[in-house]
Amino acid sequence: MATRFARTPTVGRSRVVVSPGSSRSSRSSRLLASTAKASAKTSDKKKTDTSKRPELEGHVAIDAPPASFVTEREGDEAKDSIRHKFEKLIRESQDSICAAITEVDGMEFREDAYTRPSGGGGITRVFQGGNVWEKAGVNVSVVYGLMPPEAYRAATGNDDAELNGEGFVPFFAAGISSVMHPHNPHAPTMHFNYRYFETEQWGGIPSQWWFGGGCDITPSYLYKDDMEHFHGTLKNVCDEHDEAYFPKFKQWADDYFMIKHRGERRGCGGIFFDDLNDKPKEELFEFSKQCQQSVVPAYVPLVEKHMNDEFTEDQKRWQQARRGRYVEFNLVYDRGTTFGLKTGGRIESILMSMPLTSRWEYDYVPEKGTPEWDLLDACQTPRDWV
Amino acid sequence: MATRFARTPTVGRSRVVVSPGSSRSSRSSRLLASTAKASAKTSDKKKTDTSKRPELEGHVAIDAPPASFVTEREGDEAKDSIRHKFEKLIRESQDSICAAITEVDGMEFREDAYTRPSGGGGITRVFQGGNVWEKAGVNVSVVYGLMPPEAYRAATGNDDAELNGEGFVPFFAAGISSVMHPHNPHAPTMHFNYRYFETEQWGGIPSQWWFGGGCDITPSYLYKDDMEHFHGTLKNVCDEHDEAYFPKFKQWADDYFMIKHRGERRGCGGIFFDDLNDKPKEELFEFSKQCQQSVVPAYVPLVEKHMNDEFTEDQKRWQQARRGRYVEFNLVYDRGTTFGLKTGGRIESILMSMPLTSRWEYDYVPEKGTPEWDLLDACQTPRDWV
Repeated sequence: MATRFARTPTVGRSRVVVSPGSSRSSRSSRLLASTAKASAKTSDKKKTDTSKRPELEGHVAIDAPPASFVTEREGDEAKDSIRHKFEKLIRESQDSICAAITEVDGMEFREDAYTRPSGGGGITRVFQGGNVWEKAGVNVSVVYGLMPPEAYRAATGNDDAELNGEGFVPFFAAGISSVMHPHNPHAPTMHFNYRYFETEQWGGIPSQWWFGGGCDITPSYLYKDDMEHFHGTLKNVCDEHDEAYFPKFKQWADDYFMIKHRGERRGCGGIFFDDLNDKPKEELFEFSKQCQQSVVPAYVPLVEKHMNDEFTEDQKRWQQARRGRYVEFNLVYDRGTTFGLKTGGRIESILMSMPLTSRWEYDYVPEKGTPEWDLLDACQTPRDWV
Repeated sequence: MATRFARTPTVGRSRVVVSPGSSRSSRSSRLLASTAKASAKTSDKKKTDTSKRPELEGHVAIDAPPASFVTEREGDEAKDSIRHKFEKLIRESQDSICAAITEVDGMEFREDAYTRPSGGGGITRVFQGGNVWEKAGVNVSVVYGLMPPEAYRAATGNDDAELNGEGFVPFFAAGISSVMHPHNPHAPTMHFNYRYFETEQWGGIPSQWWFGGGCDITPSYLYKDDMEHFHGTLKNVCDEHDEAYFPKFKQWADDYFMIKHRGERRGCGGIFFDDLNDKPKEELFEFSKQCQQSVVPAYVPLVEKHMNDEFTEDQKRWQQARRGRYVEFNLVYDRGTTFGLKTGGRIESILMSMPLTSRWEYDYVPEKGTPEWDLLDACQTPRDWV
């Protein structure tokens, strides 16, 4: 064998990834956008020299993750905090979701853990070349970061207020994110991502917190029952908390996952939300928890149903072309990915979302009336499944 | 067979793609950058409402291209213009390069021609699934476009001058671009792109013109002789015109083709230049012509040498991972691609450059001392081949 493979070097340098994914109108994305804008404009406001932003971030591989990244940094007094509770939740979700996937696939996840010099860290679990999934990954990460005040002013919506804070604004973010690409073209790809954000009191603005996240499905072939089951499971979780959530979050997903240059979405949507702080923190924590617990029942039955379906070479080819669209969305539009790449996040964790294989054919357009055309039509004009 | 394929709809809507590819410090990219910047800043200069920019552009499929897009729009009096001469040149280059590729591969190119409502048009020639190349394409395009004055002020370097023009600035651009991806992992991918730009007299600034372009090589396995031949051929062409060209344009390519988030280039470079107007127009026309004529002798012998090499599954896998890097560069960094996607160019022509197949493995790093490591090392630290 000509090639042998080693692990990446154990030390990388990176800056904080403010958000693992967000939408046009979200607070997290305003943070990102204003970071860029701020460096250009000549404001008369008090300014922090962002070129001198401390290089606090990076990632150092560790053999095993600590019991808690939060208490490791903040001490045991943080045990009752929502930060610690959310970290516990996402790590439990990582365990249970990986276990459910391994049960179906037979393949175990490889684990890479790392810490950040400024505190926090992450656990990436991935396998590729499984029996059912060609690639599956579930990341958790805990970030203690600093954002420029210009970003914070925009994020809090108090852009013109008298904000007298000095230096960078400390924030906390914890999240779980995952993408799973099955082999069989009749079984769909699924992505989810749930996160919790906090900023510290700064310059006259009290501490802020919010939840974000979502879950979406990307089939290559449409099965109406499957879409009803997936969207229906998410709707049930939403409806238990607020009947306004599902319609709003479904629309948000349809807007967010748009591949603008194609005029089509990468798939058939699901839910997407950000800036969520319209109910008590404990209640929204429960909502995020139930969303995370719904991933396996919403998705895994669809894969079990189709993982042994017969398929033709042409169907595989169509799946590969749709995987190409997935790559286009992630590299060109997905805010978590593009921001992560540009700010030096851990590349292997960020690009874990990429399919193992993909394909670009010139001018590959399905003929009207075919199953491929039906899928494309649903990506161009989102449907209401429930 | 479950899938049948039709051509894309014959009418698309798009805006002008100002440049088919350029570099950080180039005039074309300043045009692009300043377009974005201009919409944000509140300048006290005379401003054109870019939100009311006329929707002149689009593409309409035609059965066969006209003898000349230039004379079709400008009439026969344009026959002696450099615009017409350059269009003739790139169409001859397209013919001769496609013929040379078909001679090696055996596969004929499919041709798609289109016009733009504002004049100009393009000819895309592509094949996929050939005997030697999995995908090969050569585009020519002729654009009559309009750029916002803010962009023009930046482009001409007279940002602070008294410029009293009204409305948009007319420009002309013609170019040829090409990417070829062979099957065999020992045979390299090659890209080239040569273009000519003109702006009309506007607001006190006389008409401007410049040449741009380049040619670069992306092997999966390094063969020193091949790199010496490729770079040496380009160096000879450069040296005939100016001995300062090759070192400068080689460095420009090494800078341009950087995948920043990986800390590596997509390949082993070549030449890249823009804003070239430091010699008489006729002389630079000759330089561009000889560059175009050097594509086949620089590249095709490398493919002929390796197209029947034996290879292992692992070597194919490595090639596919490098194709993934190609996709990352093109979708995240290449200015022609990203600008084209965001402004609604003809998507199938823009993404013709994508490989037919590619692959993303998690944490796929070659071990030191292997041939894969050697290639990666040359992408991380560019070498001088001649």
